[in-house]
Amino acid sequence: MEIKNPYLMFIGDVPDQLAAKTASGVAHWRPDWCLGQLRLEGCKADLGLPDMTVLEAAAAGVKTLIVGVTNQGGFFADSWVETMHLAIDNGMDIASGMHAKLDDVPGLSDKASAAGRQLFDVRHTSQTFDIGRGHKRSGMRLLTVGTDTSCGKMFTALTLEKEMRDRGMKAEFRATGQTGIFIAGNGVAIDAVVSDFISGSVEWLCPENDPDHWDLVEGQGSIFHAGYAGVTLGLIHGSQPDVLVVCHDPGRPHMRGTPAIPVRSLSEVIEATKEAARVTNPDVRCIGCAINTSKLSDVEAEAELQRARDETGLPAVDPVKHGVGVLVDAL
Amino acid sequence: MEIKNPYLMFIGDVPDQLAAKTASGVAHWRPDWCLGQLRLEGCKADLGLPDMTVLEAAAAGVKTLIVGVTNQGGFFADSWVETMHLAIDNGMDIASGMHAKLDDVPGLSDKASAAGRQLFDVRHTSQTFDIGRGHKRSGMRLLTVGTDTSCGKMFTALTLEKEMRDRGMKAEFRATGQTGIFIAGNGVAIDAVVSDFISGSVEWLCPENDPDHWDLVEGQGSIFHAGYAGVTLGLIHGSQPDVLVVCHDPGRPHMRGTPAIPVRSLSEVIEATKEAARVTNPDVRCIGCAINTSKLSDVEAEAELQRARDETGLPAVDPVKHGVGVLVDAL
Repeated sequence: MEIKNPYLMFIGDVPDQLAAKTASGVAHWRPDWCLGQLRLEGCKADLGLPDMTVLEAAAAGVKTLIVGVTNQGGFFADSWVETMHLAIDNGMDIASGMHAKLDDVPGLSDKASAAGRQLFDVRHTSQTFDIGRGHKRSGMRLLTVGTDTSCGKMFTALTLEKEMRDRGMKAEFRATGQTGIFIAGNGVAIDAVVSDFISGSVEWLCPENDPDHWDLVEGQGSIFHAGYAGVTLGLIHGSQPDVLVVCHDPGRPHMRGTPAIPVRSLSEVIEATKEAARVTNPDVRCIGCAINTSKLSDVEAEAELQRARDETGLPAVDPVKHGVGVLVDAL
Repeated sequence: MEIKNPYLMFIGDVPDQLAAKTASGVAHWRPDWCLGQLRLEGCKADLGLPDMTVLEAAAAGVKTLIVGVTNQGGFFADSWVETMHLAIDNGMDIASGMHAKLDDVPGLSDKASAAGRQLFDVRHTSQTFDIGRGHKRSGMRLLTVGTDTSCGKMFTALTLEKEMRDRGMKAEFRATGQTGIFIAGNGVAIDAVVSDFISGSVEWLCPENDPDHWDLVEGQGSIFHAGYAGVTLGLIHGSQPDVLVVCHDPGRPHMRGTPAIPVRSLSEVIEATKEAARVTNPDVRCIGCAINTSKLSDVEAEAELQRARDETGLPAVDPVKHGVGVLVDAL
């Protein structure tokens, strides 16, 4: 799977900005790839990109229509289908992050095959993987882990990639979720992989590489999350991380989706993750904390960061406010 | 999914006894359900059951043809297809533990639908599950865990079920692998579940129950196995075990399939598993060890069991030689 850029970002007729969160993320991280947005009547989101029709986008050189929308049920609305057909008619591939499959849109798959176009369902995978073997691979790997789901693991990995490349280091973001896959143009939707192959799919995602090459692997879930920890552990074993960065969103009363289960402390998460990671990399170390302080005042934010430093003995930053220079220094 | 018994055990033309291991396990644990075996010319395995044709089995009341064979590639040999069609023609369902799907056998699915018969692919699941929530459920649960894959977790859980039922306790084996599913008649092939739903599928498998009811959940893999630990951790969180029994096959130089990674000690496995299990059950405890001493002399076996007792401070038995009475006493 290699999603060709540049992209036209299709956000349909979503009712608010949150429903276009995936597309926003892609537009933020890949401004050069996102030539425009296509909005239908009634759309309440705006990516800050030029509005384009399919024809205008085709003329501008767009290679892929990205369906980067979240809705209840994850299906393609009837009102979107015309745009999708038009994209194929005008020489584009389509990549979707919906739960529904592009193959199930009437007529789309046949039309794409006949035209030599590709349909990418990034939430699904028909790829087969080997079972994880845990053998040591050359190159270096950093994995972002977290105290919970949705607490900045993708953002932190991408910020690290940018900082490291700016310093002339060999660094490559490795996507494991839908937004990350649009941003990277490839990757593995790890939560869609059959469970026997979780760690094996990650071994495939970040293979042998140059000794000074860094894979920045997008983490998922948390080792203490009752719903997702299996995915998290497979990611830990498969990525055999040399280095961990732990991500945290303070102030959550419990982990997302599991009201009975409190969020564990940074140091508990670091210790449990390191213990697990030693199975495939005995030399793993945690180099710092990435804290999302967006909901805090400046004073509260600094107190939270200092608290993290005191608790863990490690650097702590908010990647949005401070960047991750301090973390890259610690590599 | 509920596989109807009695069964006719189909073992085709397998080249040795090992290739009929699944069928042997079913015949061992469910002698009353397994009315006969069907072997083709050249078959080198024997389940010790009466040989039967499909017609004889149908006359004897068989409800399901079980394809309980292991071969390279996991496909249905051409020579088996006639038997499978004949089973449908004679009113049987078919359940298979192969990697290939019964639906892909030419004509079989249409014939089964027309006849109102069911095809069960126990290695696959089309069932949808919720994401694990980690909420406390009534009833009690025991999970068998291990120092590696294939070290007696299913056998131990089934032996516990038998012992507990013999004592008049409410006990139910919960199958998570193909052989176990044939033995229970239902279950979840946990390694075939999409990874987002590992723990959720286990929550479904052992739901709320009477306060004095025990689910005996078949474990898989090991928390230290670089290929399978994600599955193992999902099982731990989803089953929220009150009690663990740790299974061990001594003398392995490394974990199966991961030559770089040594087998961890019993006490390391117990501690790591308990730590993980506390996420959904803070009161989890390990009650003992089940050691496979089949490759040892009597003297060596007793030394190995004593070593396990000394290391863990817990009872240790070989379930095959001694039963699991000592473990049930410890409940």
